[in-house]
Amino acid sequence: MITLTRRYEFPASHRLYSKQLSDADNDRIYGKCNNPYGHGHNYVVDVSVRGPVDARTGLAVNLAELDRYVRERVVEPFGHRNLNEDVDDFNALVPTTENLGVVVERRLREAWPWSEPRLEKIRIAETDRNIFEIVSHETERQ
Amino acid sequence: MITLTRRYEFPASHRLYSKQLSDADNDRIYGKCNNPYGHGHNYVVDVSVRGPVDARTGLAVNLAELDRYVRERVVEPFGHRNLNEDVDDFNALVPTTENLGVVVERRLREAWPWSEPRLEKIRIAETDRNIFEIVSHETERQ
Amino acid sequence: MITLTRRYEFPASHRLYSKQLSDADNDRIYGKCNNPYGHGHNYVVDVSVRGPVDARTGLAVNLAELDRYVRERVVEPFGHRNLNEDVDDFNALVPTTENLGVVVERRLREAWPWSEPRLEKIRIAETDRNIFEIVSHETERQ
Amino acid sequence: MITLTRRYEFPASHRLYSKQLSDADNDRIYGKCNNPYGHGHNYVVDVSVRGPVDARTGLAVNLAELDRYVRERVVEPFGHRNLNEDVDDFNALVPTTENLGVVVERRLREAWPWSEPRLEKIRIAETDRNIFEIVSHETERQ
Amino acid sequence: MITLTRRYEFPASHRLYSKQLSDADNDRIYGKCNNPYGHGHNYVVDVSVRGPVDARTGLAVNLAELDRYVRERVVEPFGHRNLNEDVDDFNALVPTTENLGVVVERRLREAWPWSEPRLEKIRIAETDRNIFEIVSHETERQ
Amino acid sequence: MITLTRRYEFPASHRLYSKQLSDADNDRIYGKCNNPYGHGHNYVVDVSVRGPVDARTGLAVNLAELDRYVRERVVEPFGHRNLNEDVDDFNALVPTTENLGVVVERRLREAWPWSEPRLEKIRIAETDRNIFEIVSHETERQ
Repeated sequence: MITLTRRYEFPASHRLYSKQLSDADNDRIYGKCNNPYGHGHNYVVDVSVRGPVDARTGLAVNLAELDRYVRERVVEPFGHRNLNEDVDDFNALVPTTENLGVVVERRLREAWPWSEPRLEKIRIAETDRNIFEIVSHETERQ
Repeated sequence: MITLTRRYEFPASHRLYSKQLSDADNDRIYGKCNNPYGHGHNYVVDVSVRGPVDARTGLAVNLAELDRYVRERVVEPFGHRNLNEDVDDFNALVPTTENLGVVVERRLREAWPWSEPRLEKIRIAETDRNIFEIVSHETERQ
Repeated sequence: MITLTRRYEFPASHRLYSKQLSDADNDRIYGKCNNPYGHGHNYVVDVSVRGPVDARTGLAVNLAELDRYVRERVVEPFGHRNLNEDVDDFNALVPTTENLGVVVERRLREAWPWSEPRLEKIRIAETDRNIFEIVSHETERQ
Repeated sequence: MITLTRRYEFPASHRLYSKQLSDADNDRIYGKCNNPYGHGHNYVVDVSVRGPVDARTGLAVNLAELDRYVRERVVEPFGHRNLNEDVDDFNALVPTTENLGVVVERRLREAWPWSEPRLEKIRIAETDRNIFEIVSHETERQ
Repeated sequence: MITLTRRYEFPASHRLYSKQLSDADNDRIYGKCNNPYGHGHNYVVDVSVRGPVDARTGLAVNLAELDRYVRERVVEPFGHRNLNEDVDDFNALVPTTENLGVVVERRLREAWPWSEPRLEKIRIAETDRNIFEIVSHETERQ
Repeated sequence: MITLTRRYEFPASHRLYSKQLSDADNDRIYGKCNNPYGHGHNYVVDVSVRGPVDARTGLAVNLAELDRYVRERVVEPFGHRNLNEDVDDFNALVPTTENLGVVVERRLREAWPWSEPRLEKIRIAETDRNIFEIVSHETERQ
């Protein structure tokens, strides 16, 4: 068994603002991240998959297929987008990087087309100094 | 004479869209970067200054003062902002990273408070793979 | 559940020398790291915390509070210090990076002020090529 | 207990080609990586070991001995080599980075000369964007 | 005037061996890099171009066109190749990274399709610790 | 003509304190860097040399010789040292990184054993965010 981690990147913008909170609370909790027109990041997403090495090919994953899947599920819908305005997942969800990570993991997991390798975890970096990791539910259940 | 390069970072968002161009041209030239609600980056700005080493202190620059100056002139007005909506410099200027670099260099140069060290150049990275460098006018004039 | 890793850095110096060992053994075991006046490193500490994402705010941690806590417990007492001479934790403990990591993890864990997120692990890098990881006791007990 | 990760690097070349597959299948599966004369990478191997910190020395591992062992078992036989032509391990095994990682882990584990620390895992990066991790069998058995 | 640096990467293999030298001299000069079947690297090429910022578009270069040109002239012919066996430029030239850089700069310069921006320099990294820079002839002539 | 940059690293400690300044001034100017027992850094030194590519060997420099020279002149005398206490160059010179860079450049230049390549410049990084560059006198004289 082997774990392969593949790196993807996309730029996006967000505004941290919760409709469930008062303006004063939004300011207090999110500070400058609550600026009305938003700001942005180069998000770095590391997708880790786990499975056996195929004895004939020596491969654990078909990288071209994995790339196509991650681009379709994550990079295309989120990249070069304003997460608040352009992405339905954040209609009722504040697009913190915590929530962005949760959504990325769920989008990858729910339509995962392979029995092997399976999705192990995703990591998403907002900056070099702030990194979030979500272990895939199936992994945790073991 | 020594050159000191100091690194600053700020997140911001932008939309590449020129009022001087037709919608079709905006689409053709800027592609996804023209998405209406914008997207963002972690901009990395390297400020290079050049001057003599003070014989008594062994320093070429007062870092606390340089940091205060760069924060006041660049990081505060641009960080956590939408460059198109929040920054007057981009009222009539497309906020490409080329133009952002030109504006950052000019803002630093115009109010530069020291005779030594002088501003040598700035570098601004949109991503690890796209880096822009503007040599300061005074440097070039030599 | 999500894991957030936040990066901190501080410069410090140390000398590897054990009072329990003969001079010959100190030389043999620690080599150049036993030079009497010490040497130093830019230590990089990654603090990982684990907890749920708050449904209202979309946050797993209050970063301003976490930063204040880590600065008070680790960066202030250790940064810009000689670990052997300035830090009581190393009165009877050789300040290897192994021991520095153990002390950093314990200092963070013992006064940890939150029930959630909890401290998961710390990583400390002496250089890019030498990295130490200490899983928090509470994590291991699970 | 502490985990120490130590980084090693070596350049090598490989051709992805399986004698068990038809030429058409080799082309389809490996694409440009099947070019007859091969291509190469700077492989980065992170070796993680796990053990207690020695109370007297404050060390978890004798780095000089670990370096000697990893160089002898991995860096010398694989570095500056063509994996297909020069390394017996790949006589009947396609030298994908998956298989290279499996072989590196096995070579380190089989002759591991210490009871403590024990080998925990190895990570091998083909590029910054493709990283493989093999947890050591003994670790998994726990 | 602005300088834009764009990063490209490709893996390739090479053997350092000169037909003009005796076997003993090849061994003495190139050491392990003279292993008969070669070894490889992930080469990183930074292409720097220099020109004015277009007042209407705010761009200094059409990145899609630059990428197409660099891929066609450098990444396609050299990537996933054995430089000694697959690339005619090295029929009579030892494929050291010095010579690889010289060849990359010349291939980009000779067919350079734009009057602005012009090619300023290229940098090529064999590893993080060995980096070569070739200033473009036209730049030096100024 | 080609420029080769080779990277070296060494850990050292320093205290910023000038005998020519009052204690109050030392505190005001150097702050925490004036802590009596010092602190340290992983210094990264990039040595750039410039020369022609040898037509027969394809090399611009004999790396083994360059490494031996830089180790003897810089890495051995400064690495794992307290710059204030162990290095004579800093008897009357505050070991700021500015001065360390000036001393490193001078030590390399004064005994430079080759007519080609010649020393072009050195860069020294105290941290990723503070980088100093000294162009070699001979280069500037041109």
